[in-house]
Amino acid sequence: MRHLAHWSLVMIVVSALSPQKVEAKPRARDLGVPFDGVPGANNAITDVPGVEVGHATIISGAGKLDVGKGPVRTGVTAVLPRGRNASAPAFAGWFSLNGNGEMTGTTWIEESGLLEGPVLLTNTTSVGTVRDAAIKWWLAHHKQAQPWLLPVVAETYDGHLNDTHGFHVREQHVFAALDSAQTGPLLEGNVGGGTGMCCFEFKGGIGTASRKVARPSENYAVGVLVQANFGARGQLQIAGVPVGREIPESTFRSKEMGSIIIVVATDAPLLPHQLKRLARRAALGLARTGSTAGNGSGDIFVAFSTANPQAANATGLVNLTMLPNESLNGLFEATVQATEEAIINALVAAETMTGRDDHRVIALPHDRLRDVLKKYNRLVDSNAK
Amino acid sequence: MRHLAHWSLVMIVVSALSPQKVEAKPRARDLGVPFDGVPGANNAITDVPGVEVGHATIISGAGKLDVGKGPVRTGVTAVLPRGRNASAPAFAGWFSLNGNGEMTGTTWIEESGLLEGPVLLTNTTSVGTVRDAAIKWWLAHHKQAQPWLLPVVAETYDGHLNDTHGFHVREQHVFAALDSAQTGPLLEGNVGGGTGMCCFEFKGGIGTASRKVARPSENYAVGVLVQANFGARGQLQIAGVPVGREIPESTFRSKEMGSIIIVVATDAPLLPHQLKRLARRAALGLARTGSTAGNGSGDIFVAFSTANPQAANATGLVNLTMLPNESLNGLFEATVQATEEAIINALVAAETMTGRDDHRVIALPHDRLRDVLKKYNRLVDSNAK
Amino acid sequence: MRHLAHWSLVMIVVSALSPQKVEAKPRARDLGVPFDGVPGANNAITDVPGVEVGHATIISGAGKLDVGKGPVRTGVTAVLPRGRNASAPAFAGWFSLNGNGEMTGTTWIEESGLLEGPVLLTNTTSVGTVRDAAIKWWLAHHKQAQPWLLPVVAETYDGHLNDTHGFHVREQHVFAALDSAQTGPLLEGNVGGGTGMCCFEFKGGIGTASRKVARPSENYAVGVLVQANFGARGQLQIAGVPVGREIPESTFRSKEMGSIIIVVATDAPLLPHQLKRLARRAALGLARTGSTAGNGSGDIFVAFSTANPQAANATGLVNLTMLPNESLNGLFEATVQATEEAIINALVAAETMTGRDDHRVIALPHDRLRDVLKKYNRLVDSNAK
Amino acid sequence: MRHLAHWSLVMIVVSALSPQKVEAKPRARDLGVPFDGVPGANNAITDVPGVEVGHATIISGAGKLDVGKGPVRTGVTAVLPRGRNASAPAFAGWFSLNGNGEMTGTTWIEESGLLEGPVLLTNTTSVGTVRDAAIKWWLAHHKQAQPWLLPVVAETYDGHLNDTHGFHVREQHVFAALDSAQTGPLLEGNVGGGTGMCCFEFKGGIGTASRKVARPSENYAVGVLVQANFGARGQLQIAGVPVGREIPESTFRSKEMGSIIIVVATDAPLLPHQLKRLARRAALGLARTGSTAGNGSGDIFVAFSTANPQAANATGLVNLTMLPNESLNGLFEATVQATEEAIINALVAAETMTGRDDHRVIALPHDRLRDVLKKYNRLVDSNAK
Repeated sequence: MRHLAHWSLVMIVVSALSPQKVEAKPRARDLGVPFDGVPGANNAITDVPGVEVGHATIISGAGKLDVGKGPVRTGVTAVLPRGRNASAPAFAGWFSLNGNGEMTGTTWIEESGLLEGPVLLTNTTSVGTVRDAAIKWWLAHHKQAQPWLLPVVAETYDGHLNDTHGFHVREQHVFAALDSAQTGPLLEGNVGGGTGMCCFEFKGGIGTASRKVARPSENYAVGVLVQANFGARGQLQIAGVPVGREIPESTFRSKEMGSIIIVVATDAPLLPHQLKRLARRAALGLARTGSTAGNGSGDIFVAFSTANPQAANATGLVNLTMLPNESLNGLFEATVQATEEAIINALVAAETMTGRDDHRVIALPHDRLRDVLKKYNRLVDSNAK
Repeated sequence: MRHLAHWSLVMIVVSALSPQKVEAKPRARDLGVPFDGVPGANNAITDVPGVEVGHATIISGAGKLDVGKGPVRTGVTAVLPRGRNASAPAFAGWFSLNGNGEMTGTTWIEESGLLEGPVLLTNTTSVGTVRDAAIKWWLAHHKQAQPWLLPVVAETYDGHLNDTHGFHVREQHVFAALDSAQTGPLLEGNVGGGTGMCCFEFKGGIGTASRKVARPSENYAVGVLVQANFGARGQLQIAGVPVGREIPESTFRSKEMGSIIIVVATDAPLLPHQLKRLARRAALGLARTGSTAGNGSGDIFVAFSTANPQAANATGLVNLTMLPNESLNGLFEATVQATEEAIINALVAAETMTGRDDHRVIALPHDRLRDVLKKYNRLVDSNAK
Repeated sequence: MRHLAHWSLVMIVVSALSPQKVEAKPRARDLGVPFDGVPGANNAITDVPGVEVGHATIISGAGKLDVGKGPVRTGVTAVLPRGRNASAPAFAGWFSLNGNGEMTGTTWIEESGLLEGPVLLTNTTSVGTVRDAAIKWWLAHHKQAQPWLLPVVAETYDGHLNDTHGFHVREQHVFAALDSAQTGPLLEGNVGGGTGMCCFEFKGGIGTASRKVARPSENYAVGVLVQANFGARGQLQIAGVPVGREIPESTFRSKEMGSIIIVVATDAPLLPHQLKRLARRAALGLARTGSTAGNGSGDIFVAFSTANPQAANATGLVNLTMLPNESLNGLFEATVQATEEAIINALVAAETMTGRDDHRVIALPHDRLRDVLKKYNRLVDSNAK
Repeated sequence: MRHLAHWSLVMIVVSALSPQKVEAKPRARDLGVPFDGVPGANNAITDVPGVEVGHATIISGAGKLDVGKGPVRTGVTAVLPRGRNASAPAFAGWFSLNGNGEMTGTTWIEESGLLEGPVLLTNTTSVGTVRDAAIKWWLAHHKQAQPWLLPVVAETYDGHLNDTHGFHVREQHVFAALDSAQTGPLLEGNVGGGTGMCCFEFKGGIGTASRKVARPSENYAVGVLVQANFGARGQLQIAGVPVGREIPESTFRSKEMGSIIIVVATDAPLLPHQLKRLARRAALGLARTGSTAGNGSGDIFVAFSTANPQAANATGLVNLTMLPNESLNGLFEATVQATEEAIINALVAAETMTGRDDHRVIALPHDRLRDVLKKYNRLVDSNAK
């Protein structure tokens, strides 16, 4: 029962008061994975100024599934476009590559072009709890503002490791994720909504990356955060290399399953219809990792811009700035590249986890990854630290 | 405090055991409103065989708003495409005329063409509670079936009469609405999700109607159920007559607000892309009542077919039947007509209600309606009972 | 054969040099039809400053159909958002209520949010000719501009009156429609693309109307132009009155057929996603005339804004203005109202026409219309001139 | 003037009578490019039984551009879902990854779920000519059938090599492409609509590939045909290998430009909403070649099923078969794989071409490709013939 010592009876809710300590773990490019483009300072969605991210990670119990008791391997992740203290909506657009999943609030995003609060990520059965709790949090924090009643909550399914029918996410976890949101370096892997997720039959979860946009839009950044829970082992490609086939061990699925939620942020002044274009590019980044977006997948993407905070002013004419369509190619590339890297970062950061019924999902072995990249002449030593 | 005697301290949850007694109240066509087409036996969505509808109505308290305490004027309505005991999905499609509202589960309807469980209607802040409770109910009732994890829950805002920020809908109300679902005549007006709703600044709520489809598809029915909570008084048209302008008293809004959810059912064998077409026709029925679908409106529609229950069989080839596109005109007309009548039925059935902060919303006065129709030579006496 | 004297062997192509003379014919509100809202100076789409409209009307031959020879009753109508001499794109959005028709160029409108040239209306089989000719015209007139290669051309089917398989629209007609575009009062009825069209089994064609937007956006106008070719007689409602049933004679169809193209223009500074909302409201105006959008209908709508001419500047940041979502209700109402009136204007303006195989389609009889409105107490004498 | 000897004054229109001779040229897998999945007999869209493809290739002139005279490097490609002699529609769906292009007829595909005739591919300025000619051809060939009036014509821009503003595609070329349609092995590269196209700054054009679907749907095939005209050199990946960076010479663009049209065929019985899912997967195959779908790209995809030929029967109930959603993963993979291979096949087949103003676009050098694959340990010798 060696997992017990490690996991059991531990419930961690990241505190709202003490900032999350981000350990110095290697990330994908530290291991020598080649990626195109230039990342921002933290290579994280928080490289888009104003964006804050918080996690509540819920881990307790071990062994046989006892519905309602555990084991629990789940959580909530919150992405706040303008941080915890702002209430201004952000222009946004969304795209469903394969809609076997939930993202609430999208009908209003499509209609209004606005994301009016945070994007929250959790497990499938907790969407409702998180949604209503988000309303309560908003009412408590933004009393002057218009009530925010159409929250955006997305999910992937963590039933392989988590007692997902036990409904373990509670209001206070949602508040904790929101209250702990911060800028700067981010936790990845087994945290927040990504706690119990699997990706290409390795342990998956939360990953993030960013890009400085190439000329002529070099003042802007694109950041991506994913909750990665998809893919069959044999499909996995990293930097174009068939890594999944080269590391075939410890698979546990008979067919491709799972989902990925992708959040794209930028400070470039894009209009809603342009942000839909960005959201659609996330599919191209996902494709580079080998996904074919299986029927069971909830591959749902949302993109927002932190520019134009005045966009939802309710009275009078609003002055906006816009990057014209002709200048978007750099943003498209940045989105594709950052999506690809965020997924690989999730795989690299996630650690082996044992959950319900002693299901054990191994982490992507870093040394094996380097060996495979080397075999295909794709290992980039200059990146390694 | 005369309302107290009437409303206060009463909580009604329609029992799952004793069928709802539907009182013999006049409906719109009983008052002489002219409508096109031939309704089914109950002039209700339940004229589509298999469809069951249940309500949980929550009414308590009176007087000044005390958030979390009341007054409470809200509830839940459940529409089950194949009744409480069936777990087979139904082909479905949806349409958002103006998406200032929530209908969860639509991303999967769009992708799969399937509605996998009931459609649930409630107030805006209770969507999450209702969603997760629906999962619990499904897990408890359909143990053999695939877990149903992407519930379809829609809302309109009842904050004018209800303590909507008090989150008064609980799991047990959802269970009660689902467990009390029945076929046959239906309650309308101040029931279920429609309890606290307003429509054209009259009391609104739940309404329903149906049509026998005209040849060559005369074996089929179309049924509609609405949760009507939209419109400014001056916009109201009934049978093309400007009723709203003729009855200008007791208005309470400075601008058009509110939403309408429309559920369209048919037993005609339509494919998902054809059901989207049906859902889109609901907009035309809505337009006939005078709506211009204001910015604040969540006008979201879903249509399903009870034919082809085998459509979601997971293995092998599935045999289906389909009504070809050339035969759809009768269904389009039926949808437009039944939508119009369902909205007017909601207005006719709803009774004057006093809610939070003594807000009082009057019912559409039946005698005045008849007078106005007569003035415009549109009163149909042959319909009156 | 009295029609022969009137129609045969006449080919009219409206000249590009002499402005179209708009005869003083009564329009719907002149006949006492009640409409809501306040129209602009010309009650036409040209009340939106900058918008120009031109027609080429092609009429020749009579009697039995001889494919390729005639009789010909067809044409081309051009709507130029910023007039003939401007090449700046306009923000735009579109909506298909029932897509049994063609509107080319919509994929790029959806993607870019831009309408890059005129909207051209013609018959079904001439869409290709018109499209390629539009490119030629553009290349000749806007040499400095980006070549405009994705023209927007829409159609309705005029085969009841016209030798539509004879492909009688030629390049020069397209040039003539574009070159004759003008602001001010417009021809309606049997002109341009509307020449051979039928509506509710009366003669139909081109119609237009406009609205001054109500407060708080009273500086703006909404204009609508329709090519109306839809509806079964029994469906027709005017001002909510069942006019079609009251004038049942001279019908010629066994079922509802046909299409309507609706062009919505505004000078309000709306973004592309907001213009999609406007386009969607055209469906509500259409519904008020009795349409249920039959399967055979190509009910396709496009909306554009003449504001923000700099929107497509290819370099650097673009400054825009936007009317916030909260201010759109007046524009929605204006769109619904102007669409309804434009359709009725097409019916009122169109004159009885005899076409191929001596098919004769009668005009809506003005006196009968007034009688019916009076019967239902809806005749507005104060409007009559 | 060495190109003159090769190209000038030659106009080839593939005859409708003598079948196209497909030369034994190496294809991508013959060169040792590794691809996943098992192709059909011809590794072509024609491996889907019934599908026929015809080309008209128009090449004449050389040297300096003289608009209207040449040089001409263009053509038309026709994909007929059920061959030249059938008139039954096919269930279909479409997707626009980036809509800077034209595909006519999509509004009706979206509405009806049906593709009612061929898919035609040509250059940008010839869409109109091809559209109207397709109507004429249909009227002449299918007299008993419903007139087919909403043709599906798509385009990419060949102005780098072709006098595209000279409008050189004529009616007879469209007829020739349609009349020469055949099953079996297909021409690739500089043929038909692909004649003047460029891809990753190599010569591009038409490419095709197919897959036998894996279990449990192993009785079905997926075939893909592309008209490839997109991409900057540096983006090109083949089998995950950065081929574009390794072969940097003879580029001619300052930025990514161009488009790709993808046609996906299957004999699996899919409904329209499922075919939209297939169309969306083409984006994932495209992504594997390195595309980020630039702003200037018209990346528009259509998918159809040859099953259920009775789907559009106009009367009575139609019996259909359907592959349930749970069985689609194999088809999704097949679509991704065949799309990727079809694009690479286009690159491998296309030959160096010199066009207008002596613009010369080189073919992808086969030996260099093999060297690069070898460098990255991805050359598959077992495939080489």
